[in-house]
Amino acid sequence: MIHSARLLACVAAVALASPVASQEGIAGRYRETANRLIAAATSDSATFARLTRLTDAFGSRFSGSESLERAIDWILGEMKKDSLENVRGEPVMVPHWVRGSESLRLLVPRPRALSMLGLGGSIATPPEGITADVIVVGSFEELRERGEDARGKIVLFDAPFTSYGQTVAYRVNGAIEAARVGAVASLIRSVTPYSQQTPHTGGMRYDSSVTRIPHAAMTVEDAMMLHRMQDRGERIRVTLTMSARTLPDVQSRNIVAELRGSELPNEVVVLGGHIDSWDVGTGAMDDAGGSVAAWEAVRLMKQLGLRPRRTVRVVLWTNEENGLRGATGYRDAHRTELDDHVLAIESDAGVFRPTGFGFGGSDSAFTIVREIARLLAPIGADTITRPGGGADIGPIMALGVPGMGLQVDGTRYFWYHHTDADTIDKLDPAEVARCVAALAVMAFIVADLPEPLPRAAR
Amino acid sequence: MIHSARLLACVAAVALASPVASQEGIAGRYRETANRLIAAATSDSATFARLTRLTDAFGSRFSGSESLERAIDWILGEMKKDSLENVRGEPVMVPHWVRGSESLRLLVPRPRALSMLGLGGSIATPPEGITADVIVVGSFEELRERGEDARGKIVLFDAPFTSYGQTVAYRVNGAIEAARVGAVASLIRSVTPYSQQTPHTGGMRYDSSVTRIPHAAMTVEDAMMLHRMQDRGERIRVTLTMSARTLPDVQSRNIVAELRGSELPNEVVVLGGHIDSWDVGTGAMDDAGGSVAAWEAVRLMKQLGLRPRRTVRVVLWTNEENGLRGATGYRDAHRTELDDHVLAIESDAGVFRPTGFGFGGSDSAFTIVREIARLLAPIGADTITRPGGGADIGPIMALGVPGMGLQVDGTRYFWYHHTDADTIDKLDPAEVARCVAALAVMAFIVADLPEPLPRAAR
Repeated sequence: MIHSARLLACVAAVALASPVASQEGIAGRYRETANRLIAAATSDSATFARLTRLTDAFGSRFSGSESLERAIDWILGEMKKDSLENVRGEPVMVPHWVRGSESLRLLVPRPRALSMLGLGGSIATPPEGITADVIVVGSFEELRERGEDARGKIVLFDAPFTSYGQTVAYRVNGAIEAARVGAVASLIRSVTPYSQQTPHTGGMRYDSSVTRIPHAAMTVEDAMMLHRMQDRGERIRVTLTMSARTLPDVQSRNIVAELRGSELPNEVVVLGGHIDSWDVGTGAMDDAGGSVAAWEAVRLMKQLGLRPRRTVRVVLWTNEENGLRGATGYRDAHRTELDDHVLAIESDAGVFRPTGFGFGGSDSAFTIVREIARLLAPIGADTITRPGGGADIGPIMALGVPGMGLQVDGTRYFWYHHTDADTIDKLDPAEVARCVAALAVMAFIVADLPEPLPRAAR
Repeated sequence: MIHSARLLACVAAVALASPVASQEGIAGRYRETANRLIAAATSDSATFARLTRLTDAFGSRFSGSESLERAIDWILGEMKKDSLENVRGEPVMVPHWVRGSESLRLLVPRPRALSMLGLGGSIATPPEGITADVIVVGSFEELRERGEDARGKIVLFDAPFTSYGQTVAYRVNGAIEAARVGAVASLIRSVTPYSQQTPHTGGMRYDSSVTRIPHAAMTVEDAMMLHRMQDRGERIRVTLTMSARTLPDVQSRNIVAELRGSELPNEVVVLGGHIDSWDVGTGAMDDAGGSVAAWEAVRLMKQLGLRPRRTVRVVLWTNEENGLRGATGYRDAHRTELDDHVLAIESDAGVFRPTGFGFGGSDSAFTIVREIARLLAPIGADTITRPGGGADIGPIMALGVPGMGLQVDGTRYFWYHHTDADTIDKLDPAEVARCVAALAVMAFIVADLPEPLPRAAR
């Protein structure tokens, strides 16, 4: 409540400081509406309660799991209670990978169990596990140089975190590169700048040109320890046991709900996040937070009686984590409407303190969304940068839909990403509320502008 | 190396800025010696290599474990190689608690395994575990108010971390207070300000006036979740299974090694840490770091040919964590020498960036050690506060020996304390080197002063 009171005072101060508001174009015309949305979002405790309930009651929401489908059922029910319009689950077939029991045991030089998580999509080991010596490398380059030494061994990629974009290469391609030099399994140092013996799971690939080998993540601490042991000339031997299986695809759903436009209901602004998570933790940041924030943004418009000219559509995609089938499914199901998709906004970087949006679209649209973002100055979310987008809106952006990703303070995002520690207690209700406000203001105004956002010439 | 170069430059600058050094009393007389010790400690990489080797090779060093005794054997051998004097293991009988297999499973409202660690000294559950409803309380006061509700249930103390001294009360006394109101087991929220689903173990007590019940720690995240579930009126039911056993005491050893005094060898300055740890992680901060820092401080004196008037004795106590038998054993074995113990220094707060020492002793001694501490200004470790001491030197301080505890930046100490995440990668070689320097300078000068540190009148 202290946060909200401060923020309302701040909003009022900013409004008072702008006597020329009414002459300001977009920002002037929508300032009062924006301030109402910001005030509503930041004085509301229902959003965080809903997010907490979702993560506590259903836990992780992995594609193929019962908990994902139960969470979807619950959200659809709540959206109907919110009187959102055209609430529906749109069927999508999704992969069904099951982790099963798994373990990693250091045999030599010091017997002990090591924390690990198999990577999503990995094959299993034989039931008795794979027992082999370990070769530790710091990079793909080092693996290639020492390729001969890796034959018949387990390769450990001990690559320190630089950026997610760079370091994730070992998670995604490690099994391919290790198999290429004849390794029997591959391990990675978890992709994170910080660890408390915390393994991080995530997606990976195989390549039809090389043998599929099991692929798993160990902790930063243990990867560094094995590297030191190797540097001291010690032999390292482990047993890796994984019983992961890929079952036939199963049906999941994208959640779709709308606030229909008052004048141009066939023109659509999409906003959303992904409702699935990995099979660890509760996916509070990744991405229950983005999903609930988008949903709540639309609920608040409805609650305030704000109905824009165009339709605002919340989409909670399924299967972002290990298939992106929700994203491609949405594209395919709505392909004929995409010319009328004015903008797609995704929140999938955590619901920490928002700073603005990354934008992918035409120069003239960029000018307009920057103008709108000025109205987010009271909550510090007024910075628009290029490029921008999101995994789930990628397929429709590729077909010309302008896209936008909510940007937030990412200091600790990768501390928790794809781990058991991605839980609601890591989030601050005041920061989540600001995310809701930023999404609501941007989505509403773009949906209500006299003209659609101009697209780039194609 | 950058760190060391900078520090040497800094030491030189401080020396140049003090032209009156030779007229300054203690600080003046010992400035050159102090700077030599600081330069040696901060340009040495052997300390961190030794600390790494100790924790990598032996892992956790719990009282009663083979790994503790093997680590002690290795240290004794290394100390002999260092040509330290009177190197010996002094026998001490220690408790032998064995964790065994253990688990905590949430049955209702959402079935899942919960991370946990039994607390040291806890009894076991029956083999089939204890299945009961959970009552969550935020404090002992709330437990007393709701005492009737706790009968036959498992009490969870969800007490947020304020300070270690305050919050540890739930770990130490939780089983007693829960048993007093008829609970069948007790759980605590791990004693830490930060968590990544990280359970923290530690010591606990029973009281002969009430029934002994099993006592375990869960993670901050899960404790908060169960509390929220209770607040929403949901029934919470768990199965706690622990097979912990307390076996007969076994023999361990305090490690003792000396640099004998040149003039007054029977007068002694003790410095050390504790060589045992909990049975998780590798006890890198708690307290391999303090142990190795004290040992290295004496090795560096020897290496530099610095032999003080009095004896400097490094003592690495055993069984600090769950019995303090090393501390009381040292007191008993050396009781007749304690009048000649000039000072006892302990490092057991982690080997992070040192800030100085906490001191427990007479006013006149406080004046002297503050004067000595001025020589630690080049490494920022020149602050002496009162009171001070340490768990292992407590028993001899109680008999009149002045005591001192190394103080360090404690920001993250309790993030790792008694967990699997207490590993070498959390430590910075440059910070550890400064700890060595601070210990070496303080111990050497106190051991070399013309007069012993004055004790308080008794």
